Amino acid sequence: MATAILLISCPDQRGLVAKISNWVFAHNGNIIDADQHVDQEAGLFLMRLEWDLADFSIPREAIASEFQDLATAIGLSWQLYFSDRVPRLAIFVSKQEHCLYDLILRQKAGEINAHIPVVISNHRILEPIAHDFDINFHHIPITPETKLKGEGEQLELLRQYQIDLVVLAKYMQILSTNFLQAFPEVINIHHSFLPAFPGANPYQRAHQRGVKIIGATAHYVTEDLDEGPIIEQDVIRVSHRDTVASMIRKGKDLERIVLARAVRLHLERRVLVYGQPEARRTVIFE
Amino acid sequence: MATAILLISCPDQRGLVAKISNWVFAHNGNIIDADQHVDQEAGLFLMRLEWDLADFSIPREAIASEFQDLATAIGLSWQLYFSDRVPRLAIFVSKQEHCLYDLILRQKAGEINAHIPVVISNHRILEPIAHDFDINFHHIPITPETKLKGEGEQLELLRQYQIDLVVLAKYMQILSTNFLQAFPEVINIHHSFLPAFPGANPYQRAHQRGVKIIGATAHYVTEDLDEGPIIEQDVIRVSHRDTVASMIRKGKDLERIVLARAVRLHLERRVLVYGQPEARRTVIFE
Amino acid sequence: MATAILLISCPDQRGLVAKISNWVFAHNGNIIDADQHVDQEAGLFLMRLEWDLADFSIPREAIASEFQDLATAIGLSWQLYFSDRVPRLAIFVSKQEHCLYDLILRQKAGEINAHIPVVISNHRILEPIAHDFDINFHHIPITPETKLKGEGEQLELLRQYQIDLVVLAKYMQILSTNFLQAFPEVINIHHSFLPAFPGANPYQRAHQRGVKIIGATAHYVTEDLDEGPIIEQDVIRVSHRDTVASMIRKGKDLERIVLARAVRLHLERRVLVYGQPEARRTVIFE
Amino acid sequence: MATAILLISCPDQRGLVAKISNWVFAHNGNIIDADQHVDQEAGLFLMRLEWDLADFSIPREAIASEFQDLATAIGLSWQLYFSDRVPRLAIFVSKQEHCLYDLILRQKAGEINAHIPVVISNHRILEPIAHDFDINFHHIPITPETKLKGEGEQLELLRQYQIDLVVLAKYMQILSTNFLQAFPEVINIHHSFLPAFPGANPYQRAHQRGVKIIGATAHYVTEDLDEGPIIEQDVIRVSHRDTVASMIRKGKDLERIVLARAVRLHLERRVLVYGQPEARRTVIFE
Repeated sequence: MATAILLISCPDQRGLVAKISNWVFAHNGNIIDADQHVDQEAGLFLMRLEWDLADFSIPREAIASEFQDLATAIGLSWQLYFSDRVPRLAIFVSKQEHCLYDLILRQKAGEINAHIPVVISNHRILEPIAHDFDINFHHIPITPETKLKGEGEQLELLRQYQIDLVVLAKYMQILSTNFLQAFPEVINIHHSFLPAFPGANPYQRAHQRGVKIIGATAHYVTEDLDEGPIIEQDVIRVSHRDTVASMIRKGKDLERIVLARAVRLHLERRVLVYGQPEARRTVIFE
Repeated sequence: MATAILLISCPDQRGLVAKISNWVFAHNGNIIDADQHVDQEAGLFLMRLEWDLADFSIPREAIASEFQDLATAIGLSWQLYFSDRVPRLAIFVSKQEHCLYDLILRQKAGEINAHIPVVISNHRILEPIAHDFDINFHHIPITPETKLKGEGEQLELLRQYQIDLVVLAKYMQILSTNFLQAFPEVINIHHSFLPAFPGANPYQRAHQRGVKIIGATAHYVTEDLDEGPIIEQDVIRVSHRDTVASMIRKGKDLERIVLARAVRLHLERRVLVYGQPEARRTVIFE
Repeated sequence: MATAILLISCPDQRGLVAKISNWVFAHNGNIIDADQHVDQEAGLFLMRLEWDLADFSIPREAIASEFQDLATAIGLSWQLYFSDRVPRLAIFVSKQEHCLYDLILRQKAGEINAHIPVVISNHRILEPIAHDFDINFHHIPITPETKLKGEGEQLELLRQYQIDLVVLAKYMQILSTNFLQAFPEVINIHHSFLPAFPGANPYQRAHQRGVKIIGATAHYVTEDLDEGPIIEQDVIRVSHRDTVASMIRKGKDLERIVLARAVRLHLERRVLVYGQPEARRTVIFE
Repeated sequence: MATAILLISCPDQRGLVAKISNWVFAHNGNIIDADQHVDQEAGLFLMRLEWDLADFSIPREAIASEFQDLATAIGLSWQLYFSDRVPRLAIFVSKQEHCLYDLILRQKAGEINAHIPVVISNHRILEPIAHDFDINFHHIPITPETKLKGEGEQLELLRQYQIDLVVLAKYMQILSTNFLQAFPEVINIHHSFLPAFPGANPYQRAHQRGVKIIGATAHYVTEDLDEGPIIEQDVIRVSHRDTVASMIRKGKDLERIVLARAVRLHLERRVLVYGQPEARRTVIFE
């Protein structure tokens, strides 16, 4: 079933659900899923609407312009997606394989509905895994001196492969502001329960601090390291028996699962980011 | 803010969200919360709709009859509630105090929006707790011989105190079919992760079986013991170090929290029960 | 059954378990529980040993001095406790009642094996609760000007009531270095998943940051605010639907449970603090 | 570091820890880890002891016979393992790949310390995965008519490959009593929170029942289906939004993690099974 998905935000006002659902109904659309949230404090209305395109009276290519009329009338910001347009992912990795394997196997199993045409890495070590699954692999080393050039090559590859989303699957480099302005759709997995232990070596620091629970956080990447909008988090118990090594091992399971959930939510267009620049957060329409 | 809440179910069909939200909007209602779910397998549309009564153009006492016109036209089953009509609870207990204390303290703290005019028990042991909080206490002993008579007295008390909901807070008696037909709104807490360990002594049996996790389940009471629609469940880890006594202790925390969540969800009219008699289950509109 | 409990730490070396368990066995002690941990990195051996005093050949009052001979020989640091010496708690509170009620009710139910002779508060609001349970209540207001004097009165009360442990059950004041040097046995409950959101208003900041999980942390109090050794932590999921108010409500359940677990672990002498001053952490012998 | 590991059980009695740890110390063994548990109800003492073989004065091949003298004297049942003797696994699968991939990748990453020389399946579908990782694959179809013969072939392969442990990684066949008597070391992953939903189609039945949490259970296989000693369990929340398909998807993550944890615990000799035949359970020495 091909569906259309609208992600909508606007200042809260009376009649929004009625007006928007009416528009779909008036054009013979069958709503599959409608979920909305009002952030009372921010005075914002946020909605995800999904409807079957089967008998919809507006041709697919005209939906956006038709909806714009309604959107203008009531002051909506919106994004439109079609479920049968399969997004294209680039996976960035360094040396650790667990998240790369996990994403590839989930894609293969149909859990993640996306194409993965390319893996990009600053090391060669994971090249064989990409090749095993017939995915193109590009090695772009990054040093402080070559970073600007390397990111230029990365961006060029994203264009060539027509990438919609970059997933940092344990990519141990910080993307520059320049990169993010050119390509802002980036999801990262951080191996701590943010905002605890941002930055480097979170498991070592968690061990040193003697915490009883560790976590992982998937978030959109912004210019402020580990400060981007959080999509998903999860945790697991640890004890004094855990070494840094066993925390890393337990953490790998968290990282895989949390990253996969976040990518899946994003690809199903269930994530809406909103809020002031210094405090952007997510609505997850599950 | 006084709100109206509608819980709706009907066979799924095109335009339901539009028609229902339009009805509210046409009468100048401001929707605070709208959540719906379609059970594809059952072909059922289920919805919770809450709107501010402030500027609503239909007087409160006429809302039900006005809505009935729309409901008839599109074949809806529905229940209407007003948020400022505070429900009245009767708590049934036996000898254990933890759930009783918990419900009373949450009510006192405003976490549970209800009146608790009466505690009914088959033992006298918890009478002082009821009295400490100025709640009426009725002791109705239940033996196989006196059960019919005792339940008759219980039902009479529910009428006198104008009770909306009975909460079995570790009430160690089985309510008869007769009782449940006369008063069907009853929530129970069962001290296992149903359908594991229904019936008596679940902690002993969990210990005997060597499970690594124990749970608690809050459900509506039906004639089939521990088979009613599940509202909420939660679990906690145990190990070989746990004795039956420590499982009981850990379980008490689960029981309190799971029962309180279920009562709260029910009182906020977030629970909709549906399905065939032999497999009724709940939608939780959170 | 009266038992003796030893908490032991020393540099790791061959034969420690043998030597220590032999000492107990040689004096006809029946070991009920023995648990040890080696922190490889720190080269430290840490142990909890509990044995039945019934047929033990050393009289209770001589155990410490007899054990000191062994301890000197092999370089042990140790603390000795007797399970039938019931510890005495002072609970410090401000305006929130949930942790106070929880500790009192658990003590009453036998879940926490302690006397609670006194509640001390900088407000009068919770006085009736203490009185309901026949616990002495002392109101000691704290302002920047009166803090020194107020803490002096608190310390004097701890002496009078022969207090072993102070539990800060949502006590919204910071204890001075002076207080902690005079009385170092203090457990606090912090309403976040430390080290995330130390200091004031953690729920507001968690909401602002858009986290998907919130937590609570029980720890020993040190001079560095919210930096003391962590005893126990737990978490609960939240979503964009949660307001600060609902996070506070959910957090209360966490705070109660986490604080109660920590107090219980401490009272059963299952917590051993060790490590360098800037990174002290706990072994939990469960 | 090569270590020796003893798993011990015997009727509880005074001096067991002293006698056993003394034996190790007397032969110059350095205890790395010692954990014991007393099941008070059963009157059983259960212990796991691990020591460094480096300076141990008894040659490896004589340890068993030397220890037997002590064991006889105090009535111990025991098993002895050496950490540098890497166990050999056979993985049994049917059509689902997720647990197979997971075990292979963990073994490759060093998380599971074992050899995996062979995958055996009643279908051919997963053969390419085995081959990708240079693991032998044997296709042995099982029908009611060929079961006896097929199991004979399986047992013959276990002998040829010198297998220590069979892991049923979503093997959708029931092993006969005959097989289990010939080869009793078998771990299975069941896709429910046992004892809830034993047998076939647990996700469908969980969905039908409307549970709010689903689980997975790893256990040793016995003649009574899904009744064997439980090694590990874990759970995840579901809601009315979950279909059977999404429960299956979420359940896969549970199955992978729970099975991997159980296999790892077994391989590190941290699992001791004990108890009466009708209620055998596990001690997990973590």
